[in-house]
Amino acid sequence: MLSNKQLKYLKSLHLRKFRQKYGILVAEGVKTVTEIFDHPGSPIEGVYAVQEWLSENVHLVSKYRDKIFAVTENELAAISQLKTPNQVLCVLKQPVFSYEDEDLSSGFSLYLDDIRDPGNMGTILRIADWFGVRWVFCSKNCVEVSNPKVVQASMGAFLRVKTQTVSLQELRANYQGLPFLGTSLAGDSIFKIDLPEAGIIVIGNESVGISEETEQLLTQKIKIPRHPNGGAESLNAAVATGIICSVLQRF
Amino acid sequence: MLSNKQLKYLKSLHLRKFRQKYGILVAEGVKTVTEIFDHPGSPIEGVYAVQEWLSENVHLVSKYRDKIFAVTENELAAISQLKTPNQVLCVLKQPVFSYEDEDLSSGFSLYLDDIRDPGNMGTILRIADWFGVRWVFCSKNCVEVSNPKVVQASMGAFLRVKTQTVSLQELRANYQGLPFLGTSLAGDSIFKIDLPEAGIIVIGNESVGISEETEQLLTQKIKIPRHPNGGAESLNAAVATGIICSVLQRF
Repeated sequence: MLSNKQLKYLKSLHLRKFRQKYGILVAEGVKTVTEIFDHPGSPIEGVYAVQEWLSENVHLVSKYRDKIFAVTENELAAISQLKTPNQVLCVLKQPVFSYEDEDLSSGFSLYLDDIRDPGNMGTILRIADWFGVRWVFCSKNCVEVSNPKVVQASMGAFLRVKTQTVSLQELRANYQGLPFLGTSLAGDSIFKIDLPEAGIIVIGNESVGISEETEQLLTQKIKIPRHPNGGAESLNAAVATGIICSVLQRF
Repeated sequence: MLSNKQLKYLKSLHLRKFRQKYGILVAEGVKTVTEIFDHPGSPIEGVYAVQEWLSENVHLVSKYRDKIFAVTENELAAISQLKTPNQVLCVLKQPVFSYEDEDLSSGFSLYLDDIRDPGNMGTILRIADWFGVRWVFCSKNCVEVSNPKVVQASMGAFLRVKTQTVSLQELRANYQGLPFLGTSLAGDSIFKIDLPEAGIIVIGNESVGISEETEQLLTQKIKIPRHPNGGAESLNAAVATGIICSVLQRF
């Protein structure tokens, strides 16, 4: 049984401003929470689970005793942001990363230029995770990673892939020798260019693609060519990211 | 102003059973409806638009006079399935295709094995459309193409890509010489195999992948290898489809 104070706090996390104030993200559902427990050093603040989940996870309950709280189905529904809550909700400290101490020139990173759809953002984190891309940088207008739909769609990738909000200008200034690749209608086919060994892959907004301002900062324009018999106007941003990563990270 | 009969009919289309009964799909929003008008021979049954859209599209209004109905914002909200309706809603006869008259052995087709998420289904149609894949076959448990979220996510691709519900057994029996490729953990890397010139690409369900029963029907098992530094358990089904299509349809 949760106290009123706990309930109030957990409900406040439905709002972005409170997640940001407390530096918190919320992960829901059996699958994601299991990944959190499996991930070494997950910054778990609290786990709120129904009795059924607790009974099946006794080993965790004993290990994290002071962080696990039994809740009723009704309480879970009240604190959950899902239409159909799934047994357990976990509150985590949002990890804060800074690329300054890292060497980005040994591999590929992603830069997301105004990705607004949380499903796309989460799916892109999952793609980065699959293809061993360690850093996903975000422009300030991207949907925030603490958005529950991002967490959900990332399928645990938010635990492993590092993210930071930073301007492309700053990255470009700090990594002057590095290729900055981005998609453009005027670009060269990704299947025909000499592939660099490392660099920043810039992914544009879902509706308008890469802005003119951003395009100025690219060192190489690429494209995924449409088939001569193809009709679609564009590819989904996450799908394009997947294809580019698959080409660049091939091994 | 819509009659009660019209309102009742349009609201009934929120339910799958009535869309199926009437053989109808509903497309919403300025962008999708513009694509419908641009597509030759779109089987338009009715267009329901607010005055603002009608004023901006006078040429269409005169051409399709007897099919276009002015609605108020409130009426549009009542017949729309979107949270924020976007000026215009279009009712179309659902095109019915049959592969029997076609030659599938001259290129690649997709077979979707229980794709349940409408966003994925729509995105896969968009991918097929981009890469010039003309046929997307669906197992009977796939989300139906007339689902409004499928229509929305397909960004007009539902007009150009042919779909049909059919069992994989039937396709396999009718195309005995054709490669049937599908992803499997035990598959060969898509980046290393000799690529066929044509065939059926089988895409598995979002949670469980390709079923054992389906795997029996494949002639070649493939996989998109995970990077040695990668962590994710899997890729999103639409992203995997995009990567496989980009590899097979490269030109």
